[in-house]
Amino acid sequence: MEQSFETILARDRALIEDRLAELFRQDTRYACVQEAMEYSLLAGGKRVRPVLTLEACRMCGGRVEDALPFACGVEMIHTYSLIHDDLPAMDDDELRRGRPTNHVVYGEATAILAGDGLLTAAFGQLTKAELPPERIVSAVATLSAAAGPSGMVGGQALDMAGEGHALSRGELELLQSLKTGALISAAAQLGGIAAGATREQLKQLDRYAQALGLAFQVRDDMLDVISSDQELGKPVGSDRANEKSTFVNALGLENCAQLVEKLSQQAADALAEFEQPEFLAWLAHALADRKQ
Amino acid sequence: MEQSFETILARDRALIEDRLAELFRQDTRYACVQEAMEYSLLAGGKRVRPVLTLEACRMCGGRVEDALPFACGVEMIHTYSLIHDDLPAMDDDELRRGRPTNHVVYGEATAILAGDGLLTAAFGQLTKAELPPERIVSAVATLSAAAGPSGMVGGQALDMAGEGHALSRGELELLQSLKTGALISAAAQLGGIAAGATREQLKQLDRYAQALGLAFQVRDDMLDVISSDQELGKPVGSDRANEKSTFVNALGLENCAQLVEKLSQQAADALAEFEQPEFLAWLAHALADRKQ
Repeated sequence: MEQSFETILARDRALIEDRLAELFRQDTRYACVQEAMEYSLLAGGKRVRPVLTLEACRMCGGRVEDALPFACGVEMIHTYSLIHDDLPAMDDDELRRGRPTNHVVYGEATAILAGDGLLTAAFGQLTKAELPPERIVSAVATLSAAAGPSGMVGGQALDMAGEGHALSRGELELLQSLKTGALISAAAQLGGIAAGATREQLKQLDRYAQALGLAFQVRDDMLDVISSDQELGKPVGSDRANEKSTFVNALGLENCAQLVEKLSQQAADALAEFEQPEFLAWLAHALADRKQ
Repeated sequence: MEQSFETILARDRALIEDRLAELFRQDTRYACVQEAMEYSLLAGGKRVRPVLTLEACRMCGGRVEDALPFACGVEMIHTYSLIHDDLPAMDDDELRRGRPTNHVVYGEATAILAGDGLLTAAFGQLTKAELPPERIVSAVATLSAAAGPSGMVGGQALDMAGEGHALSRGELELLQSLKTGALISAAAQLGGIAAGATREQLKQLDRYAQALGLAFQVRDDMLDVISSDQELGKPVGSDRANEKSTFVNALGLENCAQLVEKLSQQAADALAEFEQPEFLAWLAHALADRKQ
Protein backbone atom coordinates (compact mmCIF):
# COMPACT_ATOMS: atom_id res chain seq x y z
CA MET A 1 0.00 0.00 0.00
CA GLU A 2 2.82 2.39 1.03
CA GLN A 3 4.40 1.46 -2.29
CA SER A 4 1.39 2.54 -4.29
CA PHE A 5 1.15 5.87 -2.44
CA GLU A 6 4.77 6.55 -3.37
CA THR A 7 3.90 5.72 -6.96
CA ILE A 8 0.98 8.16 -6.99
CA LEU A 9 3.19 10.83 -5.45
CA ALA A 10 5.90 10.28 -8.03
CA ARG A 11 3.38 10.41 -10.89
CA ASP A 12 1.83 13.63 -9.58
CA ARG A 13 5.24 15.20 -9.20
CA ALA A 14 6.21 14.25 -12.74
CA LEU A 15 3.00 15.83 -14.09
CA ILE A 16 3.74 19.00 -12.16
CA GLU A 17 7.41 19.18 -13.17
CA ASP A 18 6.54 18.71 -16.85
CA ARG A 19 3.91 21.43 -16.82
CA LEU A 20 6.04 23.90 -14.87
CA ALA A 21 8.94 23.34 -17.24
CA GLU A 22 6.73 24.29 -20.21
CA LEU A 23 5.33 27.49 -18.77
CA PHE A 24 7.83 30.09 -19.92
CA ARG A 25 9.24 28.25 -22.89
CA GLN A 26 7.66 30.53 -25.47
CA ASP A 27 9.08 33.78 -24.06
CA THR A 28 12.63 34.35 -25.15
CA ARG A 29 12.71 38.15 -25.32
CA TYR A 30 13.11 38.73 -21.59
CA ALA A 31 15.73 36.09 -21.10
CA CYS A 32 17.16 37.27 -17.79
CA VAL A 33 13.87 37.34 -15.89
CA GLN A 34 12.72 34.13 -17.53
CA GLU A 35 15.90 32.34 -16.55
CA ALA A 36 15.65 33.65 -12.99
CA MET A 37 12.01 32.52 -12.72
CA GLU A 38 12.87 29.04 -13.98
CA TYR A 39 15.95 28.82 -11.75
CA SER A 40 13.72 28.89 -8.69
CA LEU A 41 10.59 27.29 -10.13
CA LEU A 42 12.43 24.23 -11.41
CA ALA A 43 14.73 23.79 -8.39
CA GLY A 44 13.12 20.56 -7.31
CA GLY A 45 11.39 21.00 -4.01
CA LYS A 46 8.85 18.64 -2.55
CA ARG A 47 5.89 20.04 -4.53
CA VAL A 48 3.70 19.49 -1.47
CA ARG A 49 1.22 22.22 -2.39
CA PRO A 50 0.53 21.22 -6.01
CA VAL A 51 0.31 17.55 -5.01
CA LEU A 52 -2.34 18.59 -2.48
CA THR A 53 -4.24 20.36 -5.25
CA LEU A 54 -4.15 17.36 -7.59
CA GLU A 55 -5.07 14.81 -4.95
CA ALA A 56 -7.79 16.91 -3.32
CA CYS A 57 -9.30 17.17 -6.79
CA ARG A 58 -9.15 13.40 -7.25
CA MET A 59 -10.56 12.77 -3.77
CA CYS A 60 -13.51 15.06 -4.59
CA GLY A 61 -14.24 13.10 -7.75
CA GLY A 62 -12.44 15.29 -10.30
CA ARG A 63 -9.78 14.45 -12.85
CA VAL A 64 -6.22 15.20 -11.75
CA GLU A 65 -5.34 16.73 -15.14
CA ASP A 66 -8.15 19.29 -14.81
CA ALA A 67 -6.57 20.65 -11.65
CA LEU A 68 -3.06 20.92 -13.10
CA PRO A 69 -3.21 24.67 -13.95
CA PHE A 70 -4.46 25.39 -10.42
CA ALA A 71 -1.65 23.25 -8.98
CA CYS A 72 0.95 25.12 -11.03
CA GLY A 73 -0.51 28.49 -10.03
CA VAL A 74 -0.18 27.58 -6.36
CA GLU A 75 3.43 26.43 -6.81
CA MET A 76 4.28 29.65 -8.67
CA ILE A 77 2.96 31.67 -5.72
CA HIS A 78 4.97 29.52 -3.31
CA THR A 79 8.12 29.98 -5.39
CA TYR A 80 7.75 33.76 -5.67
CA SER A 81 7.35 33.95 -1.88
CA LEU A 82 10.62 32.04 -1.37
CA ILE A 83 12.50 34.35 -3.76
CA HIS A 84 11.23 37.51 -2.04
CA ASP A 85 11.65 36.11 1.50
CA ASP A 86 15.30 35.31 0.75
CA LEU A 87 16.10 38.89 -0.37
CA PRO A 88 18.73 40.86 1.58
CA ALA A 89 16.06 43.29 2.85
CA MET A 90 14.01 40.32 4.15
CA ASP A 91 15.59 37.15 5.60
CA ASP A 92 18.85 37.63 3.68
CA ASP A 93 19.36 33.91 2.97
CA GLU A 94 22.03 32.73 0.57
CA LEU A 95 21.21 29.04 0.27
CA ARG A 96 17.92 27.33 -0.61
CA ARG A 97 17.35 23.74 -1.63
CA GLY A 98 21.10 23.22 -1.77
CA ARG A 99 21.70 26.05 -4.25
CA PRO A 100 22.51 29.75 -4.02
CA THR A 101 19.33 31.82 -3.67
CA ASN A 102 17.90 33.72 -6.62
CA HIS A 103 19.35 37.15 -5.81
CA VAL A 104 22.79 35.66 -5.19
CA VAL A 105 22.79 34.33 -8.75
CA TYR A 106 20.86 37.03 -10.64
CA GLY A 107 21.15 40.11 -8.45
CA GLU A 108 18.52 41.80 -6.35
CA ALA A 109 16.68 43.68 -9.10
CA THR A 110 16.16 40.59 -11.24
CA ALA A 111 15.17 38.52 -8.20
CA ILE A 112 12.49 41.07 -7.28
CA LEU A 113 11.23 41.02 -10.88
CA ALA A 114 11.34 37.22 -11.08
CA GLY A 115 9.16 37.07 -7.95
CA ASP A 116 6.78 39.67 -9.35
CA GLY A 117 6.65 37.80 -12.64
CA LEU A 118 5.83 34.46 -11.03
CA LEU A 119 3.18 36.03 -8.80
CA THR A 120 1.54 37.80 -11.73
CA ALA A 121 1.71 34.80 -14.06
CA ALA A 122 0.28 32.51 -11.36
CA PHE A 123 -3.14 34.09 -11.69
CA GLY A 124 -2.98 33.87 -15.47
CA GLN A 125 -2.13 30.20 -15.06
CA LEU A 126 -5.39 29.61 -13.15
CA THR A 127 -7.36 30.85 -16.16
CA LYS A 128 -5.83 28.12 -18.35
CA ALA A 129 -7.88 25.46 -16.57
CA GLU A 130 -10.51 23.87 -18.80
CA LEU A 131 -13.20 24.18 -16.19
CA PRO A 132 -16.47 26.08 -15.80
CA PRO A 133 -15.60 29.81 -15.43
CA GLU A 134 -17.26 30.12 -12.01
CA ARG A 135 -14.77 27.56 -10.65
CA ILE A 136 -11.87 29.57 -12.05
CA VAL A 137 -13.22 32.77 -10.48
CA SER A 138 -13.55 30.96 -7.18
CA ALA A 139 -9.95 29.71 -7.46
CA VAL A 140 -8.65 33.23 -8.18
CA ALA A 141 -10.55 34.64 -5.18
CA THR A 142 -9.35 31.87 -2.87
CA LEU A 143 -5.71 32.06 -3.93
CA SER A 144 -5.63 35.87 -3.78
CA ALA A 145 -7.10 35.92 -0.27
CA ALA A 146 -4.69 33.23 0.97
CA ALA A 147 -1.56 34.76 -0.55
CA GLY A 148 -2.36 38.45 0.02
CA PRO A 149 -2.12 40.94 2.86
CA SER A 150 -4.62 39.04 5.06
CA GLY A 151 -2.76 35.80 4.43
CA MET A 152 0.79 34.97 3.41
CA VAL A 153 2.02 38.54 2.88
CA GLY A 154 0.57 39.53 6.27
CA GLY A 155 2.29 36.52 7.83
CA GLN A 156 5.65 37.47 6.39
CA ALA A 157 5.16 41.01 7.74
CA LEU A 158 4.39 39.60 11.21
CA ASP A 159 7.43 37.35 10.91
CA MET A 160 9.72 40.29 10.13
CA ALA A 161 8.17 42.30 12.97
CA GLY A 162 8.69 39.38 15.38
CA GLU A 163 12.40 38.87 14.73
CA GLY A 164 14.42 39.24 17.88
CA HIS A 165 11.35 38.78 20.13
CA ALA A 166 10.43 35.49 21.78
CA LEU A 167 6.94 34.61 20.49
CA SER A 168 4.48 32.52 22.51
CA ARG A 169 3.04 29.31 21.12
CA GLY A 170 -0.20 31.14 20.31
CA GLU A 171 1.63 33.90 18.46
CA LEU A 172 3.67 31.31 16.58
CA GLU A 173 0.51 29.47 15.56
CA LEU A 174 -1.10 32.69 14.25
CA LEU A 175 2.08 33.54 12.37
CA GLN A 176 2.32 30.05 10.87
CA SER A 177 -1.36 29.92 9.93
CA LEU A 178 -0.88 33.10 7.90
CA LYS A 179 2.61 32.63 6.54
CA THR A 180 2.37 29.02 5.42
CA GLY A 181 -1.01 27.61 6.51
CA ALA A 182 -3.14 29.89 4.35
CA LEU A 183 -1.43 28.87 1.10
CA ILE A 184 -1.39 25.17 2.00
CA SER A 185 -5.12 25.39 2.69
CA ALA A 186 -5.68 27.23 -0.58
CA ALA A 187 -3.75 24.49 -2.38
CA ALA A 188 -6.10 21.81 -1.05
CA GLN A 189 -9.20 23.93 -1.60
CA LEU A 190 -8.27 24.72 -5.19
CA GLY A 191 -8.26 20.96 -5.82
CA GLY A 192 -11.74 20.76 -4.35
CA ILE A 193 -12.89 23.77 -6.37
CA ALA A 194 -11.58 22.16 -9.58
CA ALA A 195 -13.69 19.09 -8.82
CA GLY A 196 -16.81 21.09 -7.98
CA ALA A 197 -16.67 20.18 -4.27
CA THR A 198 -19.45 21.26 -1.93
CA ARG A 199 -18.97 24.05 0.60
CA GLU A 200 -18.88 21.43 3.36
CA GLN A 201 -16.15 19.49 1.56
CA LEU A 202 -14.10 22.66 1.14
CA LYS A 203 -14.36 23.23 4.90
CA GLN A 204 -13.11 19.70 5.58
CA LEU A 205 -10.22 20.26 3.17
CA ASP A 206 -9.40 23.47 5.02
CA ARG A 207 -9.36 21.65 8.38
CA TYR A 208 -7.14 18.92 6.91
CA ALA A 209 -4.73 21.43 5.40
CA GLN A 210 -4.56 23.68 8.46
CA ALA A 211 -3.55 20.72 10.66
CA LEU A 212 -1.12 19.42 8.03
CA GLY A 213 0.34 22.90 7.53
CA LEU A 214 0.97 23.37 11.23
CA ALA A 215 2.50 19.89 11.54
CA PHE A 216 4.69 20.70 8.54
CA GLN A 217 5.94 23.92 10.16
CA VAL A 218 6.64 22.34 13.54
CA ARG A 219 8.55 19.57 11.76
CA ASP A 220 10.43 22.26 9.79
CA ASP A 221 11.52 23.93 13.01
CA MET A 222 12.63 20.53 14.38
CA LEU A 223 14.66 19.76 11.25
CA ASP A 224 16.41 23.12 11.55
CA VAL A 225 17.84 21.77 14.82
CA ILE A 226 18.26 18.02 14.28
CA SER A 227 19.15 17.74 10.59
CA SER A 228 22.47 18.24 8.83
CA ASP A 229 23.14 20.97 6.24
CA GLN A 230 23.41 18.38 3.52
CA GLU A 231 20.10 16.67 4.27
CA LEU A 232 18.31 20.01 4.57
CA GLY A 233 19.79 21.80 1.55
CA LYS A 234 20.24 24.95 3.62
CA PRO A 235 22.30 25.73 6.72
CA VAL A 236 20.86 24.16 9.87
CA GLY A 237 20.52 26.58 12.74
CA SER A 238 19.48 29.41 10.37
CA ASP A 239 16.41 30.13 12.51
CA ARG A 240 18.65 30.86 15.46
CA ALA A 241 21.01 32.91 13.30
CA ASN A 242 18.04 34.99 12.08
CA GLU A 243 16.72 35.32 15.65
CA LYS A 244 13.47 33.61 14.63
CA SER A 245 11.16 32.28 17.29
CA THR A 246 10.43 28.61 16.62
CA PHE A 247 8.18 25.93 18.03
CA VAL A 248 11.30 24.16 19.29
CA ASN A 249 12.18 27.21 21.43
CA ALA A 250 8.61 27.52 22.66
CA LEU A 251 7.88 23.85 23.37
CA GLY A 252 11.09 21.83 23.33
CA LEU A 253 11.96 19.06 20.88
CA GLU A 254 10.05 16.27 22.57
CA ASN A 255 6.77 18.16 22.83
CA CYS A 256 7.19 19.19 19.20
CA ALA A 257 7.46 15.54 18.16
CA GLN A 258 4.23 14.72 20.00
CA LEU A 259 2.48 17.75 18.53
CA VAL A 260 3.43 16.75 15.00
CA GLU A 261 2.09 13.26 15.63
CA LYS A 262 -1.19 14.63 17.00
CA LEU A 263 -1.66 17.14 14.19
CA SER A 264 -1.08 14.65 11.41
CA GLN A 265 -3.69 12.41 12.98
CA GLN A 266 -6.08 15.40 13.18
CA ALA A 267 -5.41 16.04 9.52
CA ALA A 268 -6.25 12.46 8.60
CA ASP A 269 -9.37 12.53 10.78
CA ALA A 270 -10.66 15.66 9.00
CA LEU A 271 -11.04 13.54 5.86
CA ALA A 272 -13.34 10.96 7.46
CA GLU A 273 -16.33 11.78 5.29
CA PHE A 274 -14.60 11.40 1.95
CA GLU A 275 -14.85 8.08 0.17
CA GLN A 276 -11.17 7.73 -0.69
CA PRO A 277 -9.11 9.71 1.80
CA GLU A 278 -6.25 7.19 1.95
CA PHE A 279 -3.63 9.03 -0.07
CA LEU A 280 -4.03 12.42 1.60
CA ALA A 281 -4.16 10.77 5.04
CA TRP A 282 -0.92 8.94 4.23
CA LEU A 283 0.62 12.19 2.93
CA ALA A 284 -0.04 13.95 6.24
CA HIS A 285 1.82 11.22 8.12
CA ALA A 286 4.61 11.02 5.54
CA LEU A 287 5.26 14.78 5.79
CA ALA A 288 5.27 14.58 9.58
CA ASP A 289 8.02 11.95 9.43
CA ARG A 290 10.08 13.61 6.75
CA LYS A 291 13.85 14.05 7.05
CA GLN A 292 14.19 17.17 4.90
CA MET B 1 -18.15 70.55 -23.93
CA GLU B 2 -14.65 70.63 -22.44
CA GLN B 3 -16.39 71.52 -19.18
CA SER B 4 -18.53 68.41 -19.23
CA PHE B 5 -15.55 66.15 -19.97
CA GLU B 6 -13.80 67.58 -16.93
CA THR B 7 -16.94 66.86 -14.92
CA ILE B 8 -17.04 63.23 -16.07
CA LEU B 9 -13.35 62.87 -15.26
CA ALA B 10 -13.82 64.31 -11.78
CA ARG B 11 -16.79 62.03 -11.12
CA ASP B 12 -14.89 58.94 -12.27
CA ARG B 13 -11.93 59.86 -10.12
CA ALA B 14 -14.15 60.34 -7.07
CA LEU B 15 -15.71 56.90 -7.62
CA ILE B 16 -12.24 55.36 -7.85
CA GLU B 17 -10.82 57.19 -4.83
CA ASP B 18 -13.78 56.16 -2.68
CA ARG B 19 -13.53 52.51 -3.64
CA LEU B 20 -9.75 52.35 -3.25
CA ALA B 21 -10.01 53.95 0.19
CA GLU B 22 -12.39 51.20 1.33
CA LEU B 23 -10.34 48.25 0.14
CA PHE B 24 -8.17 47.49 3.14
CA ARG B 25 -10.33 49.04 5.82
CA GLN B 26 -11.39 45.71 7.33
CA ASP B 27 -7.86 44.41 7.91
CA THR B 28 -6.32 45.81 11.02
CA ARG B 29 -4.10 42.91 12.09
CA TYR B 30 -1.28 43.60 9.67
CA ALA B 31 -1.18 47.31 10.26
CA CYS B 32 2.27 48.04 8.90
CA VAL B 33 1.76 46.49 5.46
CA GLN B 34 -1.75 47.87 5.24
CA GLU B 35 -0.57 51.38 6.02
CA ALA B 36 2.24 51.07 3.47
CA MET B 37 -0.17 49.83 0.78
CA GLU B 38 -2.56 52.71 1.44
CA TYR B 39 0.25 55.25 1.56
CA SER B 40 0.99 54.59 -2.10
CA LEU B 41 -2.48 53.59 -3.29
CA LEU B 42 -4.11 56.74 -1.92
CA ALA B 43 -1.35 59.15 -2.93
CA GLY B 44 -3.46 60.92 -5.50
CA GLY B 45 -2.09 60.33 -8.94
CA LYS B 46 -3.96 60.95 -12.17
CA ARG B 47 -5.87 57.65 -12.10
CA VAL B 48 -5.50 57.48 -15.88
CA ARG B 49 -5.73 53.69 -16.04
CA PRO B 50 -8.89 53.18 -13.95
CA VAL B 51 -10.58 56.11 -15.72
CA LEU B 52 -9.81 54.32 -18.99
CA THR B 53 -11.43 51.17 -17.62
CA LEU B 54 -14.60 52.95 -16.52
CA GLU B 55 -15.00 54.99 -19.68
CA ALA B 56 -14.19 52.14 -22.06
CA CYS B 57 -16.92 50.20 -20.28
CA ARG B 58 -19.37 53.07 -20.74
CA MET B 59 -18.40 53.53 -24.39
CA CYS B 60 -19.06 49.82 -25.01
CA GLY B 61 -22.54 50.11 -23.52
CA GLY B 62 -21.82 48.93 -19.98
CA ARG B 63 -22.47 50.55 -16.62
CA VAL B 64 -19.51 52.39 -15.12
CA GLU B 65 -20.18 50.94 -11.65
CA ASP B 66 -19.92 47.38 -12.97
CA ALA B 67 -16.35 48.03 -14.10
CA LEU B 68 -15.23 49.59 -10.80
CA PRO B 69 -13.59 46.42 -9.36
CA PHE B 70 -11.68 45.96 -12.63
CA ALA B 71 -10.62 49.62 -12.52
CA CYS B 72 -9.37 49.26 -8.95
CA GLY B 73 -7.50 46.05 -9.79
CA VAL B 74 -5.65 47.82 -12.59
CA GLU B 75 -4.73 50.76 -10.35
CA MET B 76 -3.47 48.36 -7.64
CA ILE B 77 -1.17 46.73 -10.20
CA HIS B 78 0.06 50.14 -11.33
CA THR B 79 0.71 51.20 -7.73
CA TYR B 80 2.62 48.02 -6.85
CA SER B 81 4.81 48.54 -9.91
CA LEU B 82 5.70 52.07 -8.78
CA ILE B 83 6.62 50.85 -5.27
CA HIS B 84 8.88 48.10 -6.59
CA ASP B 85 10.40 50.26 -9.36
CA ASP B 86 11.40 52.88 -6.78
CA LEU B 87 13.28 50.35 -4.59
CA PRO B 88 17.01 50.87 -4.01
CA ALA B 89 17.82 47.73 -6.02
CA MET B 90 15.77 49.06 -8.96
CA ASP B 91 15.56 52.79 -9.86
CA ASP B 92 16.39 53.92 -6.30
CA ASP B 93 14.02 56.91 -6.34
CA GLU B 94 13.26 58.83 -3.19
CA LEU B 95 10.43 61.09 -4.34
CA ARG B 96 7.16 60.22 -6.07
CA ARG B 97 4.09 62.40 -6.50
CA GLY B 98 5.68 64.99 -4.23
CA ARG B 99 6.17 62.60 -1.30
CA PRO B 100 8.95 60.30 -0.10
CA THR B 101 8.73 56.90 -1.80
CA ASN B 102 7.34 53.89 0.02
CA HIS B 103 10.64 52.34 1.10
CA VAL B 104 11.93 55.68 2.36
CA VAL B 105 8.97 55.85 4.75
CA TYR B 106 8.43 52.17 5.66
CA GLY B 107 11.76 50.51 4.92
CA GLU B 108 12.66 48.15 2.11
CA ALA B 109 11.16 44.95 3.53
CA THR B 110 7.74 46.49 4.10
CA ALA B 111 7.82 48.21 0.71
CA ILE B 112 8.50 44.88 -1.01
CA LEU B 113 5.63 43.30 0.94
CA ALA B 114 3.29 46.23 0.26
CA GLY B 115 3.95 45.79 -3.46
CA ASP B 116 3.42 42.03 -3.23
CA GLY B 117 0.23 42.60 -1.25
CA LEU B 118 -1.22 45.05 -3.77
CA LEU B 119 -0.30 42.80 -6.70
CA THR B 120 -1.89 39.76 -5.05
CA ALA B 121 -5.00 41.60 -3.89
CA ALA B 122 -5.51 43.14 -7.34
CA PHE B 123 -6.54 39.79 -8.79
CA GLY B 124 -8.88 39.17 -5.88
CA GLN B 125 -10.39 42.58 -6.54
CA LEU B 126 -11.29 41.54 -10.10
CA THR B 127 -13.39 38.68 -8.72
CA LYS B 128 -15.56 41.16 -6.79
CA ALA B 129 -17.15 42.39 -10.01
CA GLU B 130 -20.82 41.50 -10.29
CA LEU B 131 -20.45 40.28 -13.82
CA PRO B 132 -20.80 36.95 -15.65
CA PRO B 133 -17.88 34.72 -14.52
CA GLU B 134 -16.51 34.31 -18.03
CA ARG B 135 -15.90 38.07 -18.18
CA ILE B 136 -14.03 37.95 -14.87
CA VAL B 137 -11.88 35.06 -16.13
CA SER B 138 -11.13 37.04 -19.26
CA ALA B 139 -10.17 40.08 -17.16
CA VAL B 140 -7.81 37.99 -14.99
CA ALA B 141 -6.15 36.49 -18.08
CA THR B 142 -5.79 39.88 -19.78
CA LEU B 143 -4.40 41.66 -16.72
CA SER B 144 -1.99 38.83 -15.88
CA ALA B 145 -0.62 38.75 -19.42
CA ALA B 146 -0.21 42.54 -19.54
CA ALA B 147 1.43 42.88 -16.13
CA GLY B 148 3.57 39.72 -16.17
CA PRO B 149 6.91 38.64 -17.59
CA SER B 150 5.78 39.10 -21.21
CA GLY B 151 4.43 42.56 -20.38
CA MET B 152 5.19 45.08 -17.67
CA VAL B 153 7.66 42.95 -15.67
CA GLY B 154 9.55 42.13 -18.87
CA GLY B 155 9.59 45.85 -19.73
CA GLN B 156 11.06 46.78 -16.38
CA ALA B 157 13.74 44.10 -16.86
CA LEU B 158 14.58 45.53 -20.29
CA ASP B 159 14.66 49.00 -18.77
CA MET B 160 17.14 47.95 -16.09
CA ALA B 161 19.25 46.16 -18.71
CA GLY B 162 19.22 49.26 -20.92
CA GLU B 163 20.49 51.72 -18.30
CA GLY B 164 23.66 53.42 -19.38
CA HIS B 165 23.14 52.46 -23.05
CA ALA B 166 21.69 54.80 -25.66
CA LEU B 167 18.58 53.06 -27.01
CA SER B 168 17.27 53.68 -30.52
CA ARG B 169 13.74 54.93 -31.13
CA GLY B 170 12.65 51.39 -32.01
CA GLU B 171 14.13 49.95 -28.83
CA LEU B 172 12.51 52.71 -26.80
CA GLU B 173 9.14 51.97 -28.39
CA LEU B 174 9.41 48.26 -27.59
CA LEU B 175 10.45 49.06 -24.03
CA GLN B 176 7.59 51.52 -23.59
CA SER B 177 5.02 49.19 -25.12
CA LEU B 178 5.93 46.56 -22.53
CA LYS B 179 6.66 48.70 -19.50
CA THR B 180 3.68 51.05 -19.67
CA GLY B 181 1.72 50.36 -22.87
CA ALA B 182 0.66 46.83 -21.97
CA LEU B 183 -1.02 47.86 -18.71
CA ILE B 184 -2.67 50.92 -20.26
CA SER B 185 -4.06 48.69 -22.99
CA ALA B 186 -5.25 46.17 -20.41
CA ALA B 187 -6.97 48.99 -18.52
CA ALA B 188 -8.99 49.94 -21.60
CA GLN B 189 -9.68 46.34 -22.56
CA LEU B 190 -10.91 45.44 -19.06
CA GLY B 191 -13.52 48.16 -19.47
CA GLY B 192 -14.56 46.58 -22.74
CA ILE B 193 -14.61 43.12 -21.19
CA ALA B 194 -16.81 44.37 -18.35
CA ALA B 195 -19.30 45.63 -20.93
CA GLY B 196 -19.22 42.44 -22.99
CA ALA B 197 -17.45 44.09 -25.93
CA THR B 198 -16.85 42.15 -29.13
CA ARG B 199 -13.40 40.90 -30.09
CA GLU B 200 -13.24 43.62 -32.76
CA GLN B 201 -14.07 46.31 -30.22
CA LEU B 202 -11.35 45.02 -27.90
CA LYS B 203 -8.87 45.31 -30.77
CA GLN B 204 -9.92 48.92 -31.36
CA LEU B 205 -9.53 49.65 -27.65
CA ASP B 206 -6.06 48.14 -27.81
CA ARG B 207 -5.09 50.36 -30.78
CA TYR B 208 -6.45 53.42 -28.96
CA ALA B 209 -4.60 52.58 -25.76
CA GLN B 210 -1.31 51.69 -27.43
CA ALA B 211 -1.22 55.07 -29.19
CA LEU B 212 -2.31 56.90 -26.06
CA GLY B 213 0.24 55.00 -23.96
CA LEU B 214 3.10 55.89 -26.28
CA ALA B 215 1.99 59.54 -26.41
CA PHE B 216 1.82 59.52 -22.61
CA GLN B 217 5.38 58.19 -22.30
CA VAL B 218 6.85 60.61 -24.84
CA ARG B 219 5.10 63.45 -22.99
CA ASP B 220 6.51 62.07 -19.73
CA ASP B 221 10.03 62.21 -21.12
CA MET B 222 9.40 65.79 -22.30
CA LEU B 223 8.11 66.86 -18.88
CA ASP B 224 11.23 65.42 -17.24
CA VAL B 225 13.14 68.07 -19.19
CA ILE B 226 10.81 71.08 -19.43
CA SER B 227 8.87 70.93 -16.15
CA SER B 228 9.84 72.11 -12.66
CA ASP B 229 10.25 69.80 -9.64
CA GLN B 230 7.18 71.29 -8.04
CA GLU B 231 4.89 70.79 -11.03
CA LEU B 232 6.14 67.24 -11.54
CA GLY B 233 6.15 66.02 -7.92
CA LYS B 234 9.53 64.37 -8.47
CA PRO B 235 12.93 65.76 -9.40
CA VAL B 236 13.14 66.86 -13.03
CA GLY B 237 16.16 65.50 -14.82
CA SER B 238 15.88 62.15 -13.00
CA ASP B 239 15.99 60.27 -16.31
CA ARG B 240 19.40 61.78 -17.00
CA ALA B 241 20.56 61.12 -13.44
CA ASN B 242 19.52 57.45 -13.81
CA GLU B 243 21.17 57.25 -17.25
CA LYS B 244 17.84 56.36 -18.82
CA SER B 245 17.42 56.62 -22.57
CA THR B 246 14.46 58.84 -23.39
CA PHE B 247 12.50 59.86 -26.45
CA VAL B 248 13.86 63.40 -25.96
CA ASN B 249 17.44 62.09 -26.30
CA ALA B 250 16.50 60.00 -29.31
CA LEU B 251 14.36 62.53 -31.21
CA GLY B 252 14.80 65.99 -29.70
CA LEU B 253 12.10 68.05 -27.99
CA GLU B 254 10.47 69.44 -31.11
CA ASN B 255 10.04 66.07 -32.82
CA CYS B 256 8.67 64.69 -29.57
CA ALA B 257 5.99 67.38 -29.50
CA GLN B 258 4.96 66.51 -33.05
CA LEU B 259 4.95 62.80 -32.26
CA VAL B 260 2.70 63.29 -29.22
CA GLU B 261 0.30 65.31 -31.37
CA LYS B 262 0.23 62.63 -34.05
CA LEU B 263 -0.21 59.77 -31.61
CA SER B 264 -3.07 61.36 -29.72
CA GLN B 265 -4.84 61.89 -33.05
CA GLN B 266 -4.19 58.23 -33.93
CA ALA B 267 -5.68 57.25 -30.59
CA ALA B 268 -8.82 59.28 -31.25
CA ASP B 269 -9.08 57.87 -34.79
CA ALA B 270 -8.97 54.28 -33.47
CA LEU B 271 -12.34 54.93 -31.81
CA ALA B 272 -14.11 55.91 -35.06
CA GLU B 273 -16.50 52.96 -35.03
CA PHE B 274 -17.84 53.52 -31.51
CA GLU B 275 -21.05 55.50 -31.10
CA GLN B 276 -19.86 57.76 -28.31
CA PRO B 277 -16.08 58.06 -28.47
CA GLU B 278 -15.99 61.74 -27.46
CA PHE B 279 -14.74 61.43 -23.90
CA LEU B 280 -11.92 58.98 -24.61
CA ALA B 281 -10.89 60.98 -27.69
CA TRP B 282 -10.78 64.13 -25.55
CA LEU B 283 -8.81 62.27 -22.86
CA ALA B 284 -6.10 61.29 -25.34
CA HIS B 285 -5.62 64.95 -26.30
CA ALA B 286 -5.85 66.16 -22.70
CA LEU B 287 -3.10 63.74 -21.60
CA ALA B 288 -0.92 64.79 -24.52
CA ASP B 289 -1.12 68.43 -23.38
CA ARG B 290 -0.66 67.75 -19.67
CA LYS B 291 1.76 69.74 -17.53
CA GLN B 292 2.50 67.01 -14.94
